Amino acid sequence: MKTIYLDNNATTRVAPEVLEEMLPYFSQLYGNPSSMHSFGGQVGRKLREAHEKMAALLGASPDEIIFTSCGTESDNAAVRAALHSNPDKRHIVTSRVEHPAIRALCAHLATRGYRVTELPVDAEGRLDLEQYRKALTADTAVVSLMWANNETGVVFPVEQAAEIAGEKGIIFHTDAVQAVGKIPIDLGKTAINMLSLSGHKLHAPKGVGVLYVRRGTKFSPFMIGGHQEKGRRGGTENTPGIIGLGKAAELAARYMETENTVVKNLRDRLENALLARIPNSRVNGDRVNRLPNTTNISFEFVEGEGILLMMDEFGICASSGSACTSGSLQPSHVLRAMGVPFTMAHGSIRFSLSVYNTDEEIDLVVEKLPAIIETLRAMSPYWKPGEGVCARS
Amino acid sequence: MKTIYLDNNATTRVAPEVLEEMLPYFSQLYGNPSSMHSFGGQVGRKLREAHEKMAALLGASPDEIIFTSCGTESDNAAVRAALHSNPDKRHIVTSRVEHPAIRALCAHLATRGYRVTELPVDAEGRLDLEQYRKALTADTAVVSLMWANNETGVVFPVEQAAEIAGEKGIIFHTDAVQAVGKIPIDLGKTAINMLSLSGHKLHAPKGVGVLYVRRGTKFSPFMIGGHQEKGRRGGTENTPGIIGLGKAAELAARYMETENTVVKNLRDRLENALLARIPNSRVNGDRVNRLPNTTNISFEFVEGEGILLMMDEFGICASSGSACTSGSLQPSHVLRAMGVPFTMAHGSIRFSLSVYNTDEEIDLVVEKLPAIIETLRAMSPYWKPGEGVCARS
Repeated sequence: MKTIYLDNNATTRVAPEVLEEMLPYFSQLYGNPSSMHSFGGQVGRKLREAHEKMAALLGASPDEIIFTSCGTESDNAAVRAALHSNPDKRHIVTSRVEHPAIRALCAHLATRGYRVTELPVDAEGRLDLEQYRKALTADTAVVSLMWANNETGVVFPVEQAAEIAGEKGIIFHTDAVQAVGKIPIDLGKTAINMLSLSGHKLHAPKGVGVLYVRRGTKFSPFMIGGHQEKGRRGGTENTPGIIGLGKAAELAARYMETENTVVKNLRDRLENALLARIPNSRVNGDRVNRLPNTTNISFEFVEGEGILLMMDEFGICASSGSACTSGSLQPSHVLRAMGVPFTMAHGSIRFSLSVYNTDEEIDLVVEKLPAIIETLRAMSPYWKPGEGVCARS
Repeated sequence: MKTIYLDNNATTRVAPEVLEEMLPYFSQLYGNPSSMHSFGGQVGRKLREAHEKMAALLGASPDEIIFTSCGTESDNAAVRAALHSNPDKRHIVTSRVEHPAIRALCAHLATRGYRVTELPVDAEGRLDLEQYRKALTADTAVVSLMWANNETGVVFPVEQAAEIAGEKGIIFHTDAVQAVGKIPIDLGKTAINMLSLSGHKLHAPKGVGVLYVRRGTKFSPFMIGGHQEKGRRGGTENTPGIIGLGKAAELAARYMETENTVVKNLRDRLENALLARIPNSRVNGDRVNRLPNTTNISFEFVEGEGILLMMDEFGICASSGSACTSGSLQPSHVLRAMGVPFTMAHGSIRFSLSVYNTDEEIDLVVEKLPAIIETLRAMSPYWKPGEGVCARS
């Protein structure tokens, strides 16, 4: 059975061009770039090239790019460095819809004497910039706001938010793990101090990420060890991963238009067809300021897990808003923050596309899903067939 | 020109079997193991297999294995977790010859209110266990001692040291990055609480490592984020890397005897031939308790960098005791801790072999190196040809 992979916000296929670029660095050109011999030195040159390619994608300078092991590491490193640079400040501003890498870190820091403000979002998952401005205080050490939400694709106005933080001398970090490669980013034109991204969301392999640190932003390493990455990240460089991510950055720039036309059209077609064919369904999150590849749709009175399992039988891969990162059956913290009603939140499915998806794949989902929802609803004690209303008082 | 790679303590070739095992997980089975769909779930099963294989190599249980991004991360995570578990204790015991991952971390912690005791070593690079025992105090939170030294191969009696720490209720961590796969390790029979290892020293790729945490040892994550690795290491798993390292662990167990017979014999032949053919040369470090693959040889009155550059012209890769990790021309901290004289320390070369080395390669080094040393000594103001003594007063 063919896999129809619509879970690209969870992870992506490594692009064949990326794998090809990486391959020689495992068993042939495996030298350590820190070595004195030319066998290692040639790998060092390829790493510099990867810094350049990533910088080009982000509108940054190569020396502003630090390769890490993942988005989570970049997030941890960014927030810790900002706090380290501001030892007298004890306040962190973030949002209620951040990725666990930021949420769990902030929850931990809250037990270590930091005060954390989690900004709410509205029913569409949007941030209120005025409320944000008011949350910033003289004690605020760092703001961390995601560029685009992993579950809904909603894009935050991080460039404006960074300007506001900058005016107050507050370090601004953004988790851009979902945004990079999907929407244009030009960091040189923003006041963003630090940005996290993850290779495996971008058709590079798992195990490599980036932390961008703007020139002039004080930084102290999270991973303390050798002199790698100009003393900013200890540990032997993941050379195949870094070289692969450099190539993926190059491809992402090339595919940006496809992402915003072809992929967006596929997503819109999927979304519109499902909304039209399945009663009591709705899209979660602002449909205007949204990633081109993501749609989060709630199907009332069904469980997301049930939908996923039945789709799995047709090889269709997607995510539900619950369980995925928590192992629990609680609806997603993102949908809860948006005030999505309980009966809607439980039956939410995130479809996230990529340049590898095809018209035929979308057709198949549109063909299969209505029957799946109907079957599940027939089993639900809350669903009244033909009426589409909740039987619960 | 063929590369003669004798720098396996810096990094190793990814074993072809390891690469083969990894390959499907880049562009075919690229699912996220945390996903609900079977496309991701099948990857989760392979990760559990990797935990089992690594546990088997170490004499541990699969749930005691946490995959990380590198040895440096494992070291940082171990020491931080031990300090976190003992918030009232402010003393760290380590040695003067540790890897930068531990040395730099301890130097950083010394600026954050911790007291660090760096135990000395003798002229052979050996630790004095009585001196060690006396260094442990009621305030000691953690001991971190390397299992085998990266520069000399000298093996520390970490099992005994862990017993002594255990008797005093002190957490014992070992950086075993160089030891794993080269000498037998059976953690179930030791009192070691935590152990770090790195994939790329073991014919697995760069970008993946392991932290072993003994069951019952309190642990708190260094990388805070999602629920991966049973909540002990946030961040999407580097699935190809972990699967590759699992395979490498299996191979390491299989090659352990070869390592201690064939590789050891090659090393001994290289060492003996160089000592016999090159006057004023000597081995640094205890030749009895030493890794089977490593020899660190000093050639008096020459610069290590000069030797490396001239060997490089014949495709021979090795390391010098200086510059490698620091970018400076200071002799290595390991050789300085051993009191190796200045004229000897500067001309030290580390040859580190692997199962991929051949008799022919060793023959070529033995053929070329005496002439290289002679050429360099002819240019040295301190060398008196024919006498082999220092011309300096």
